[in-house]
Parts: sequence; C-alpha cells; structure tokens
Amino acid sequence: MNAPFKPTNEAATNFARRHIGPSPRDIAAMLETVGAKSLDALMAETLPSSIRQKTPLDLGLALSETEALAHMRELASQNQVFTSLIGQGYSGTILPAVIQRNILENPAWYTAYTPYQPEISQGRLEALFNFQTMICDLAGLDVANASLLDEATAAAEAMALAERAAQAKTKSFFVDAEVHPQTLAVLRTRAEPLGWNLIVGDPAVDLERADVFGGLLQYPDTSGAVRDLKPAIASLHAKGALAIVAADLLALTLLASPGELGADIAIGSAQRFGVPMGYGGPHAAYMAVRDALKRSLPGRIVGLSVDSRGEPAYRLALQTREQHIRREKATSNICTAQVLLAVIASMYAVYHGPEGLTEIARRVHRRTAVLAAGLRKLGFALKSEAFFDTVTVDVGGRRDEIVARAFAEKLNLRIGEGTLGIALDETTTPATVEAVWRAFGGALAYADIEASAREALPAELKRASAFLTHPVFHAHRSETELLRYMRKLSDRDLALDRAMIPLGSCTMKLNATSEMIPLTWPEFGNLHPFAPRAQAAGYHALFARLEQWLCDITGYDAISLQPNSGAQGEYAGLLAIRGYHAARGEPHRNVCLIPSSAHGTNPASASMVGMTVVVVACDKRGDVDVNDLRAKVEQHSKNLAAVMITYPSTHGVFEEHIREICDIVHSHGGQVYLDGANMNAQVGLSRPGDYGADVSHLNLHKTFCIPHGGGGPGMGPIGVKAHLAPFLPGHPANCHPATEGATPHAVGPVSAAPFGSASILTISYIYILMMSGDGLTRATEIAILNANYIATKLDAHFPVLYRNARGRVAHECIVDPRPLKNSSGVTVDDIAKRLIDYGFHAPTMSFPVPGTLMIEPTESESKAELDRFCDAMIAIRREIAEIEQGRWKVEASPLRHAPHTVHDIADDAWSRAYSRAEGCFPAGTSRTDKYWCPVGRVDNVYGDRNLVCSCPPVEAYAQAAE
Amino acid sequence: MNAPFKPTNEAATNFARRHIGPSPRDIAAMLETVGAKSLDALMAETLPSSIRQKTPLDLGLALSETEALAHMRELASQNQVFTSLIGQGYSGTILPAVIQRNILENPAWYTAYTPYQPEISQGRLEALFNFQTMICDLAGLDVANASLLDEATAAAEAMALAERAAQAKTKSFFVDAEVHPQTLAVLRTRAEPLGWNLIVGDPAVDLERADVFGGLLQYPDTSGAVRDLKPAIASLHAKGALAIVAADLLALTLLASPGELGADIAIGSAQRFGVPMGYGGPHAAYMAVRDALKRSLPGRIVGLSVDSRGEPAYRLALQTREQHIRREKATSNICTAQVLLAVIASMYAVYHGPEGLTEIARRVHRRTAVLAAGLRKLGFALKSEAFFDTVTVDVGGRRDEIVARAFAEKLNLRIGEGTLGIALDETTTPATVEAVWRAFGGALAYADIEASAREALPAELKRASAFLTHPVFHAHRSETELLRYMRKLSDRDLALDRAMIPLGSCTMKLNATSEMIPLTWPEFGNLHPFAPRAQAAGYHALFARLEQWLCDITGYDAISLQPNSGAQGEYAGLLAIRGYHAARGEPHRNVCLIPSSAHGTNPASASMVGMTVVVVACDKRGDVDVNDLRAKVEQHSKNLAAVMITYPSTHGVFEEHIREICDIVHSHGGQVYLDGANMNAQVGLSRPGDYGADVSHLNLHKTFCIPHGGGGPGMGPIGVKAHLAPFLPGHPANCHPATEGATPHAVGPVSAAPFGSASILTISYIYILMMSGDGLTRATEIAILNANYIATKLDAHFPVLYRNARGRVAHECIVDPRPLKNSSGVTVDDIAKRLIDYGFHAPTMSFPVPGTLMIEPTESESKAELDRFCDAMIAIRREIAEIEQGRWKVEASPLRHAPHTVHDIADDAWSRAYSRAEGCFPAGTSRTDKYWCPVGRVDNVYGDRNLVCSCPPVEAYAQAAE
Repeated sequence: MNAPFKPTNEAATNFARRHIGPSPRDIAAMLETVGAKSLDALMAETLPSSIRQKTPLDLGLALSETEALAHMRELASQNQVFTSLIGQGYSGTILPAVIQRNILENPAWYTAYTPYQPEISQGRLEALFNFQTMICDLAGLDVANASLLDEATAAAEAMALAERAAQAKTKSFFVDAEVHPQTLAVLRTRAEPLGWNLIVGDPAVDLERADVFGGLLQYPDTSGAVRDLKPAIASLHAKGALAIVAADLLALTLLASPGELGADIAIGSAQRFGVPMGYGGPHAAYMAVRDALKRSLPGRIVGLSVDSRGEPAYRLALQTREQHIRREKATSNICTAQVLLAVIASMYAVYHGPEGLTEIARRVHRRTAVLAAGLRKLGFALKSEAFFDTVTVDVGGRRDEIVARAFAEKLNLRIGEGTLGIALDETTTPATVEAVWRAFGGALAYADIEASAREALPAELKRASAFLTHPVFHAHRSETELLRYMRKLSDRDLALDRAMIPLGSCTMKLNATSEMIPLTWPEFGNLHPFAPRAQAAGYHALFARLEQWLCDITGYDAISLQPNSGAQGEYAGLLAIRGYHAARGEPHRNVCLIPSSAHGTNPASASMVGMTVVVVACDKRGDVDVNDLRAKVEQHSKNLAAVMITYPSTHGVFEEHIREICDIVHSHGGQVYLDGANMNAQVGLSRPGDYGADVSHLNLHKTFCIPHGGGGPGMGPIGVKAHLAPFLPGHPANCHPATEGATPHAVGPVSAAPFGSASILTISYIYILMMSGDGLTRATEIAILNANYIATKLDAHFPVLYRNARGRVAHECIVDPRPLKNSSGVTVDDIAKRLIDYGFHAPTMSFPVPGTLMIEPTESESKAELDRFCDAMIAIRREIAEIEQGRWKVEASPLRHAPHTVHDIADDAWSRAYSRAEGCFPAGTSRTDKYWCPVGRVDNVYGDRNLVCSCPPVEAYAQAAE
Repeated sequence: MNAPFKPTNEAATNFARRHIGPSPRDIAAMLETVGAKSLDALMAETLPSSIRQKTPLDLGLALSETEALAHMRELASQNQVFTSLIGQGYSGTILPAVIQRNILENPAWYTAYTPYQPEISQGRLEALFNFQTMICDLAGLDVANASLLDEATAAAEAMALAERAAQAKTKSFFVDAEVHPQTLAVLRTRAEPLGWNLIVGDPAVDLERADVFGGLLQYPDTSGAVRDLKPAIASLHAKGALAIVAADLLALTLLASPGELGADIAIGSAQRFGVPMGYGGPHAAYMAVRDALKRSLPGRIVGLSVDSRGEPAYRLALQTREQHIRREKATSNICTAQVLLAVIASMYAVYHGPEGLTEIARRVHRRTAVLAAGLRKLGFALKSEAFFDTVTVDVGGRRDEIVARAFAEKLNLRIGEGTLGIALDETTTPATVEAVWRAFGGALAYADIEASAREALPAELKRASAFLTHPVFHAHRSETELLRYMRKLSDRDLALDRAMIPLGSCTMKLNATSEMIPLTWPEFGNLHPFAPRAQAAGYHALFARLEQWLCDITGYDAISLQPNSGAQGEYAGLLAIRGYHAARGEPHRNVCLIPSSAHGTNPASASMVGMTVVVVACDKRGDVDVNDLRAKVEQHSKNLAAVMITYPSTHGVFEEHIREICDIVHSHGGQVYLDGANMNAQVGLSRPGDYGADVSHLNLHKTFCIPHGGGGPGMGPIGVKAHLAPFLPGHPANCHPATEGATPHAVGPVSAAPFGSASILTISYIYILMMSGDGLTRATEIAILNANYIATKLDAHFPVLYRNARGRVAHECIVDPRPLKNSSGVTVDDIAKRLIDYGFHAPTMSFPVPGTLMIEPTESESKAELDRFCDAMIAIRREIAEIEQGRWKVEASPLRHAPHTVHDIADDAWSRAYSRAEGCFPAGTSRTDKYWCPVGRVDNVYGDRNLVCSCPPVEAYAQAAE
C-alpha cells in the first residue's frame, strides 16, 4: 500500500509504438537474425560515419493521438470558413457523405498503390475507367487520361503535347487573356526554359495574325463569360495549330462540348465534382484528346484488355510513353496522378447521373441568373450577358466598400481592377444570393427577383448531345446501391489494409487513422486557395511549423510546399538551380549529370528546364562510378549546372562517397540535387543539407505518411540551402490583395495553388507531431532493420544484389532472380504474379535493374508479416526448384499460371500439372481469408494493340460477359 | 436565351430518393407486376380503410443531407462538453481512432444483423468470443455472455438469475447500499411486480441477519472505496444465496477478481473500454458466471462448435433458453444485446493487451492518488483511504461553493449530501487534477504533490493472477496489425453493405451515412448521463422534437425515450398499464391476452410485470380469432389487464378487425398494448393511437434507421395515450440537482440512464428530419410495394401463406416451403443455407410459423436487388425440383451441402453429384465478386453439447488448424 509510484513508459498512448510494426521483443530477435549487436550497431554498419547526424533530431515532445487531434482542432479553429464566391477554377461542392465515409475515409481505397499490378487493382481501375468515360462524354472527345495534378499543370502538359503534335513548327503558343491567372503563370514558368513564346490576347482579335503551334482558350472564361469558341478554334486549325479548351465540367452538362466546338484537347479540373477545395488541393485535373493524339497523351490511361482466360480486364495502357521512352528528351515528367480524387469525382457522377448533374447545373445557373437580375436592378452592369455560374460586375470606385460589406457577410468575392467577380456553385442558397445583394448595397428578396431572371446561356451553345449514357451512371442512384458498388470495387483490390505492399522506392508505410481525421474537417476542406490569408491562419501556422520541421530533418534552410508531386518537386528544384546560375551571370550552365540508375523522372525533369542530360556510369557495386563522375564533371566543368543523385541510392545502399561526390560537383560550380525519394532511410540519422546537397524534394506520400490513394495524391515539397531560397517557386497571388507577396517571385509557380495540395499537409504535420524526433529516428532505424532482416532471410534463396562494404542494405534491398530465368525459365513477372496467390502485392519490378525485385518493407510492418512475406518468397523459390528438377515445365507450372482466380479453381475440368490447392493456396496460405484477385494475368500487348479507354457500348459488355 | 425557369424537383438533393431503393420508373414496373393501378390503389387494397390516417403526416419541410448536418452541428453546439468526474459507472475514455473509423464508422460492422446465421457471421462472432474471454479473464469466472444492455439491467438480470438458481428459496434480495443509485432504482422497478423484497444495507453489518436468495455488492463501491468483499460473499454462501459483484473492468486489472473473491456472478459495464459515454449509451454491459450457472445465463453466448467439415466454427450457443422455453414463466425478456459496443470494447482490449490496460489503470490510479494527496494537503478528509480511481470528499457546508468553482473550471463533480465525488479516468491529465484542486480552493502544482502520493490499493486485494493471456490480445499491437485484423474479421461477414438482408420482422433498411455522422461528434459522445441538464441543451431540444414527431407519427400523446431495446419497451409499456390499473384501484387486473403468433418477448415481458398470460388463438388466415378473443376477454373480464397484439400481425398482414379487437378489450376495462415491431408498414398511413391502442414501443433500430450493429444497439421508446403518461418510467436522477424532476416518478426506471442510449437517438432524429412526412409516407408505401412485389414473384414457386382479403400482404410476407419437405426432404434450413451460396442472408426462419420463411425487403432495396433475390429463390426451387425428379437425393444435393466454401471447391477429390460451379456459383451468380462464407454448415447440437465460450488454450487452436 505504501509503494511510491514508478514512472511508466506510457506505451499505451505512445503513437510511435503503434506506427512501428515490430515489438521490442521482435526487434531483439531480428537483430540477432541480422547479426547486429544493437540498433545503434546496425546503423553504424549501414550509414557512412561521415554523414551521420551529430545531434539527435529534436522536434519537441511527441503528442499522443488524443493530444495531437486536440491540437489540430485548435489549428482548425484558426481557419475561418467564409462562403467563397471567388471561382477561378475552385468551387464549393457537396461531397455525398456515403462517398466521403466509404472512399475518402476508407483505407481500402486510400492505402492502395498505383495500379501497376492490374490483377489486384481492378476495382480502382474500373472507377478510373468511369472517370475517363465521364471526361470523354462531357468533353466530347475520344480519349481521356485518368487525371493530372491540377488545371494549370494540365494546361502546361497540353501546351507541351501541342508542341510535339502540331503541324505548325513554331515556338509560339497562344493563350487566351481570359484564362485563369494561375494557369497563365504556370504556363509562363513552363514555356520560358524551353524557349517557347507565349502570345497572350483576345482570341477574337489577336489570334488571326499569331504564328503558333497551339492555343489555349477558357470556356466559360475566367470572368464567367460564355463565348463561342468555334471561330478561334477554326483559326488555330487553319494555321496547323492545335486548339486546347480549358472547360468547366459542370458547365458542360448545359453547354456544347469542346469536342463539338472542334477542340483537339480539353483540360480542366474535376474538383467541383464532390472534392473539397482544401485550400488548393488535392483535386483531379483532366485531359481529353481526339483519337489521333492518344499516343501523345501524358499521364496514366486506363485501358481495357483481356486476361489469361480472355475475359475483360482493366490495366494501365500505353505505359511506354513519355519519360519512359523519351527520358532526356521528354517535355513531361508526369508521374503521380490524383487517383483518389478522380475516383471521388467519378463516384459523384455515378451517384448523380446525367440528370442529377444537369439538375445541379441548372440550379446553379438559375441562381446565377437571379443574382444577375438583382445586380442589374441595383444598377450594376455585368461584363457579359452570357454566363453559366459566374458574373463579373463593373463596380468602379465602389469596389472596396462592397468588399468590406461582403467580408461582414462572410463572403469572399473575386477582386479585380474596378470589377468584382461572383461565382456560384452547388452549395449556393438563395440566402447567399441575398447576402451578395446586401454587399452590393441592396436589400432584395430572392423570391421577388426570381421571376424576372432569364436563362443566360447562348442558344447556339446549348448542349444537345447526350452524356453518361453508360449503365454505370444509371444503376446506383440509391445510397444502398452506391454503397454496395463501392464496396464491391474495393473488395477487388489489395491494399495496405489487408497485406504488406513491399514496393521498393515507394515506402508503403502505415497511414494512421488519426492522421487522416483532420483532413475531412470543414475548416481544412472548405477554404478557397485564394481566400484572404487572414482566413487561413490555422493553415499558415501549420505551414510554418511543418517547414521548420522539414528544415530540421533535412538540414536545409528553406522549404517550398508548392510542388504537388515528387516530379513537380524535381522540376521546381531544377528551376531553382537554373535561376541561381542565371542570377550569378552563368545562364550557360545547363549540363545535368544523372547516374544511370536514376528514377526516370530525373532526366525528364532536367529536360523540362532546358538542361542537357549527361549520364554517369555506376560501378559493379551499384554505386556512382566516382571516376566517371569526375571525368564528366571535368569535361563539362564550364557548363556544369547540377548533378541529380538519389540517396541512399536507388540500389538501396548508402554509398560511401556521397560527400566526395558533392564536393567534386561543387568544386566545378555545379549544384547538387539530391532526390529525396529514399528519405525514409535518413530521417533522424543524416541530413542532406549537412553533407553537401543543395536541394531535395521530399515525397510526403512516402516518408511522411500521406497515403498513396491508389495512385495519388502526392506532395513533393522541396528543401533548399539558403543560397537557393530566393529561387523557390512564386505565385501570382494577384487574385486577392491579402494573399499578395506571400512568396518571392523570382521563379514562377509550378502548381495552380500557392501551397499545392494544402489539405493533405495536415497528414504529414500530425504524423511528425505524434512521432517527434525520437519516434521518427526510431522509425528510420526499424525501416533499415526490417530491410536487413528481409535481406538476411532471403539471400540464400534470392541473392541480394547490392550491399555496402559492411554487407548492409539501407531501407530496401534488391533481390536477383535473373539466374533462375536461365535455370528454369521463370521470369520476374512470374514471381510477381505468383506472390498474389500468396496474398501479397509484388515488390517493385525491374527498377532500377531489369529482371530484379526491389523490396522495401518500411518500419510499419511487423515481424510476423515480414516472416509471412519471406516464407512466401522462399516457397516460391522451392516451386522454381521443382521446375529446375523437372517436375513441371515452366509453362505448366503454377508460377506461369499465376495469379490463380476463382474462375480457375471452379473449373471441374482441371487439367493442370499441380493440384487446385497447390495453385490457389500454396504453402498452406489461408483458405478462409484468401484474397481472390478478380482476373487472371492481364495481357499487356493485347491491351495496347486494342486500345479501349472509355466505357464501350453496352452490347460489348454483354458479349464479353459470355 | 429567354426561356423562364421551370421549378425543378431537386431530386439530386432529395434524401428520400436516396433512401428509397426503386426509382420512379421501377415503381411503375413493379405496380404493373403486382397488378395495382397506383401506389394509392395498392395501399387501399392493403390497409383496412377504417384505420387509414385521415390527414397526411406533416412534419415540416424535408432537409437535404447538407442542411440536416448543418442543423445537427447547431444542436451539437448547444451541448457543452465539460470534463465529467462524476463517475457512477460512466467514464471518459479514449476510443482509438483506428477502431472508431474501421468499426463504429464502418458499414461492414454496423449494418450487420444479429449472428443467428453463424456461417456468415464468423467475424463478429470471433470478436464477441474475444469479448467473452476478456470478461471471463478479468472477472475470474468461467462463462460470460456477449453483452447486456447496461449495468443496472445486468444487475436486475443477475438478481433474477439468483432467484432461479439459488438454494435459498426466499423472496428477498440483498443490495449493497453502496451500489450505484441507478442500479438500485432499476432493481426496485424489477423486484416490485415480482413480489421480491430488497434489503438495502452495509454488507459488513446488515447482511448477517438477512434471509436472501442473493446479494449484489459493488466493487469498487459507488463512492470509490475498495472493500474486501470476501466476508460478505462467504456470508451469502452460508445462507445458500448467490453472490453477485458489480465490478469495474479497469479496476480489475489491478484488483483481485470477483471470481477470486468467491463471487458466483459478476456484472458491470464495458463502457470505459473505449466506448463514448454518449449521454447514457449505448454501451455493452457484461455478465459472467461460474460454470454451474451457465445454462441459466441470460443473453447471448457465443460458443465454439464445428462445421460440416469438422473445422472450428463459432455460433450462438444455448439458444433455447429463457423466453424461448419459459415464455410466460420467464423472468427475463432479454433479446437485443449491445454487439457493436461489445466488439469495440473487445478491440480496445486487443489493441492495448493486458500490459496496456494495466498501464492505463496504473496511470489513472496514480493520478487519483496524487489528487487525494493534494486534497488532504488542502485539509479535506476522504471517505475511504483505499480507492482505485474515485474518491469521495467530505466537504460539509462548502459543497455549493466548490461546485460553483468546479463549474467555472468546466468540471462536473458528483454531488452528494455534504460530500463531493471525484472519479478520474484515462482522459484525466495533471491539468485536470490541478483544476479540481482549484475548485477545492487550492493552487497546487501536480508535480509538487506527485512525490508524496502513495498507492491506495489494499495489498491483500491486489491482483496476482494473469489475464488476457490468449495470443489474440498480444498479436495486434501495431495499428497496421489491428487494422488488418479488423478488416479480416469484417470480410468474413455478410452485411447490408454487400447484399439485401430480407429478414422478416427486422426491417433491415438503409442506415444512411449522413445519419451516422453526428454520432461520433464529441458534443454528442462525451456527455455524462448525469451531467447537469443545462449542459445538454442540444440533446434536450433533440429529445423534445423527436418525441413530438413520434407522437405525430403514432397518434400517441407522450413518449418515453428511456427503454434501450424493444423488449425493454414492452416491459415499460406493461409497467405503465400495471401502474394505471393500480392507480384506479384495480391492482387485481393481471391477465394479459397474447395471440399465439406473438413475438416470444411478449409473454416474457408480461410475466416480468407479474401478469398471467392467456393465449388467444389465431384463425386459418393467421389473424387473431376474434371469437376466441371475445371468449377469453369475457372469461377474464374482471381481471383483464391488457392485450398484446402486433400490428400488422407477425404474419405480415393488416388484420381487418384491429379496431374491433381494441374496442372489445376496452369494453372490459383492459388496455391495448400494440407491439410496434412492424411500424415500418404504418408510418404515414395509420396511427395506432387513432384506432384504439393505448401504448406501443417503437423499434428505432428497425423503422427509424438505427443500424443493427451486428446484434445491437437498439432503442425501444414507448408511446402512450394521455391516460398512461403519468406511468412512464421515471429516474432517480438524484445524482445531481440539475437533473432532478426531469420525468414523473410513478414508475421506476427501466434503464440505467434517463434517456436510454441517448447518442443513437441522433440517428432516428436526422432520418426523420431528412425524410419528413412525405418521405416517410413514401417509404412505407414502397416497403409495402416491395413486399407485394416479392409475394407476387415468388408465389408460384413458394406459396405465400397469409394475405388479406384483397390478396395483399403488408411490408413482409411468409412463404411456405413445408410441402417441399414432403416431396423432396428439403428443409427450411437447407433453403436458408443455400441462399448464402447465392450471396444472400436468409430470411427469418421458422418465425412465426415453423418451417416457413418470412421475407421483409424494406423500402431501401432496389428492384434490381429484389429481382436478384427472387431469381435466387426461384433457382433454388428448380434445384428442389431436381430432387423431386430424382436427379439427386436430398443428402447429395447442393441444398444439403450448402453453404459451399473455399474449402469445398479447393478439394481436388470432388465427389459430389453436382459440379463445383453448380455448388458454388448457382444460376450464374458472380464468380468475381462472390462472398465466400468462411465455414460450412455449423453443427448446432455439437456446440451445445460441448460448450466452449471463451478462448481455449492455444494448443486447442493449433490442433484444430490441423
């Protein structure tokens, strides 16, 4: 009764203990397996001592989940949710609760990976196929991709596509003066390094005499006007240029489609189909093209192919495009898409169907027309009499007085030079309209004005064509039906909520529930990216602290949160280097050295900023060949711009010479771009900024827990040393006085929104808050332990290809089944597909070394799951041995027939060389809880030869279904 | 351009259109199938005109989901979340986010039905099995059930169990004066009609000379004191009485268990294992008993049996107990459990494990000890020096001044006569403790006091025994592992998110996401049921409006929201009738007439209020035999208390004579209890209060969208005519001055909390808000249309047993496969299990007519899903025909082998008389998206003969797994 209390470790509320898979007891056992005395000893054997961080990462006390969520509530309360009528590409919207809960808040959807393994991705591939169908239908074009990052970058991609594909071989591009300002700014950023000239003007006036390879038109335009674009499109075509139309999807339910107007390419945002504004993102942008352009279309395209039984199966089509084939000649480095958001937008369309979407559009338009009638009654003139949901009002000197009253009504308007823009959306009520009138000085009643309002869509531009005619957009109108449809699709997929996804270089770690909770709070979701900064105080406090933490973690001096993917980060980082050289009077420095093992995005990004890529060889160990590097640096010394190097390397090893490499490059005036894709091996142990790197991007969707969402969203902020800080991406931010001057402006913006996909920064923020320095460091150590554990267990069965001098791998390892191809005929593809039968997603295949598998377990996987995976790999090796020993021919083996499906096992006429159980439940895997992939091995060649990228006519389905 | 706007129907935002399955076009087609000209015509053919509601249900304008959620936010903001230190059986707790999102907010868990069909319920059965294991371990007893409604009713159930099982045959029961007041009050309510006498006193003093059949002791007691109960338990045993201990589960991690103290029965609440207080509920209560008492244990027990392959399989054990066998002699009417909450509590234990729970308990205890040390330092005396988490402080005349300061600190204390109670919990921080000290007038710092605090658990009562030793409580400590475990279990089950659950009498309709959203807001979750009423203004506004709506819907004059299950509602309704007769000087009226077709709970409830049940016959049509009723009424005229009648009848028909029946009963001084289980056929069309009923319960978890949660929670509020209003359940509410006088007090409470499971009332409230009168009426019409559609489509294959004179069924129909038993040997069980192969949950089996199936589609099922179900039934009929025609013997048919599992299909040695495909994918059901039930048909007899109700030793599992 009298014992004093001992302090406890409080493991029950320690988040790091929940985030990290192995228990303390497991860790001890695993250290023994890998032959290390302690975690410290293992780290000393893994990282070069020269780069080890001297002082422990100190980010303050870790918060428990409860404390962290309370803190997030406090931050959220500092944001003020006004009714934003700013428009400019962002609308208030209603995400149906059933979609929010069962997709956006459901780990079966948000923890999935990019659908590169189509057999275990049929659910989200179908949802993306629906997305493409929706885009094709609304845009009136033939082929759409399955989303881009935002409307502005989609415009830049379209420009680049036009430059490649147009007959006209000029270096000029026409831009409608009435495109959204952020779109114009991103186009300027993109055009300048490539030497392209932008001609900005009124298409009706300035296009005629312009010599251009393409032109971008906005529809309805940024001020809200609905113009007939047919003449401008015809004019572009007459000069052999391509016509690009940036179009609002909701407006297209009422207006003739870009395709019907003659456009070659349509782009835009799918945000208003149910996706919260999120202070800038993430949202899915879209791009659709005429059939003739489909093989130039950037981004991911879902196509319909067939599986091993000839049944229809979805897959990513035309994967060998762009950076994969063009690499250093690429004009796009597109990699991440916005899958989760595209899925949500597609489900919004499935839920509402064509008649529901049309009804919403009509309602929005009607309210806008009523608004316009009231404004006229109050004596104001509108900029255009033809509009859909946005009007721009001539207010002259009364602007500031009206804006002040609008703020008092908690309304944000779009503030122009003597004008005010008002954009309505599906959330607008008559009360909102009345509040706007009050801001404009009149006390009108909605009901009184309604009768005098008239439709304001030009008769000749009204849509006559049908859209969303496919049954999928008609069969799920009740919540019960939609819920079951979403469940059915998610059940077809294998995500982190069911099994480890050991993808090298992708860091598929836990996306903890607590990290996902604030994201869907309205205080984070319902802020317009161009709302006055004062309304986003909670966001800005979060940005500031996150930037400081990322600086502490990386050793950099400044961070830009703008790039909304890793590839965008690379691009922004290289722009900073380019700006730096130019500012120092060395604009000729344009050679970028890239090791042969680099991610494909590296050379593509370098190419996009006008740099010339020079490849550096790797040595036998997989490290950068320092001698070759030295030779290349000396050869290009005068023009050396940068080296791009991944660390630890894409081979999964901490190279010894990283400091030396940095020194060599610096000594010739070059800058070091250190690709942060593998940052999960460094946090708390070493800092790029300390050992010589000048700039890195950080994949927050890898190291910092933003879920992969089935293939996006991602975030790729960059960290830079102080000398590069002036060259971080700027943003026009001229949309509103209060957001001006937020960032320096030496380099233009790379994303549509100043802080990229701001809302998902909450995820990384709360992760760091709950882990703090100790937890993050421990996570890194365990990520390395887990990888070395796998390397140790698998090496005797599949040799580990690269290790450092002390025999250690970093946070991932490459195993080499290539010798088995000779001895048995088994390919890396066979192993990957066979792993599905064991209930696993395959490791990364054939990157960076063709024919190998790269395995990254992350710190979140428990010893039990690692053992399950290793056991599966070892069992597969035994199956390969059976081929070697002549039990089966490879063509008849379960490896070649993998993955096995219900269709296989149901066949009474089973004529395989192995039993059903050997095929479907190898090595005693669970029968009861088996994941059944819905299709057999998908035929890639067939799919690319017979490209089908949107829902075929119903009859085709009926035929396919027998 | 000049067309004026037409008003639109706004279907896109109309919630009723989302709630109701069939589209307008489907409805037209279905009316044609059933041969009705219109919905109105169908209603006229279905309901007797004499009961049709004269004026349409008018509940104001329907709100869209967005508007309704905004309204709920407004209500929520009217609740004030103070830190409640009231204790008294309710604690603040931390529900891990991963459990909240993936169970409480996941339709795979919350839309499941009670696991009566074990083959499709293995996931939640395992979770409940874990719950039972946890309870047995902590309580130190042999067998636990899978939850009761709340601690107070669990105490009443334990008292009744003791009365049945004790050697001592007295009518007295001892109650510790230090039990929670609400427990004592519910015991009083329960004891009085049964003629049992409660002796309330100090067990150390008053037990010795009491002649009782059992005694209830609280541990720790309601004031927080930890007493050694061994002497009292020995004293009870010495008189042949049973010892019941109400124990706090968290305290049991540190204290010797009730079993170790010698108790026969332990009861209590599992609320503090992660379940929000919710202003009273829902939470899972528990009961555990010594092995000898297991066959007397009320409530549901999950047992381990074997399936058709001899593999282990869970099921509900000992189903033929209590009301099923004893009916009118029952002393329990327990039906609903609190499955969803028991699952949450069990997962909380799986997540924390024994060491985590112990750590939490130690932390709470340490903080309580520090609190106590500070209070002593401030000069206050504690009521007991031995405590766990609660102290009661002698404050004398300073009470009100301290309470006022506590309110200013946003703290709720427990207010006694010259005492204040302070109960801590896992949410308590040092800052909370300091705030309490400030309320008590001292400005102490936690850190200063900490060193002087000493453990306050009696050494002789410290727990020495292990608990939660089973691997399941050790293997899921990382969030990733827990997430996957929860996903794995949910995938084993079939719930509404995958398929229709056509359970007659259970109304498995859509539980819309929007309805579930407010539930997990802290403003609804974190209120203590005995918090001052002023802090619950939002709740009380909701209660008032919900009561008014339910009055409008039913035609009653007053509602009690207290009963937290349908059976509790029956009980409360009969208590009101009993009170009414007694108040009129007719306490001898004790005969309750019940038709032979009644729900089993009806006679059990009547028995519990001391009434004598007299059974009334049914005629061939299934209606109440009015002549027999008249005869019985006349026979018992003088003593007639009530009739209990279900309407529309349990046969699924609107009987013509309902008004006449009511009149007959009234004319002999009896009251009409109308069982509201089938209210889904009446809302908006007819009102029980209009056609003669005096009282009904409403199953909010049927008609008003509270999800079934896999077998609870439910809510069973009752509506009464004005003359019964004074006899609605009261509540002591003496816990706090501000809650006094809330309800009249003529009848005691039936639930622990004044408003039952208050938090889930939000679900029914928002449902009504979004549907309003028109939507609710339309829902009823479509529920009836759907049932008649099924009856029409199935009749030729399985005759529909009962219809009204115009050939119509109500909202459900009974189909009769009994003749097929003669012709083919196929049982109703075979059909039910075969439906699983078609992807459906079985209809209600053998109730109310043995050997038949009762089908209730509800309004939420679409025509497509109804057709899929009918097609499955018709295909099954064809399979039966194959037996009749001699293709198969019944023993060899796919019907008898159903359900088919992966284990079956994987068998290379398939020797069935039918193909794999015929067995597993009958009639072309989907292969790709098939639901595979994890076990074959479960052996009920084996399970009851070999009862295993908590996790067996690990070796047993290993053996079972081969």
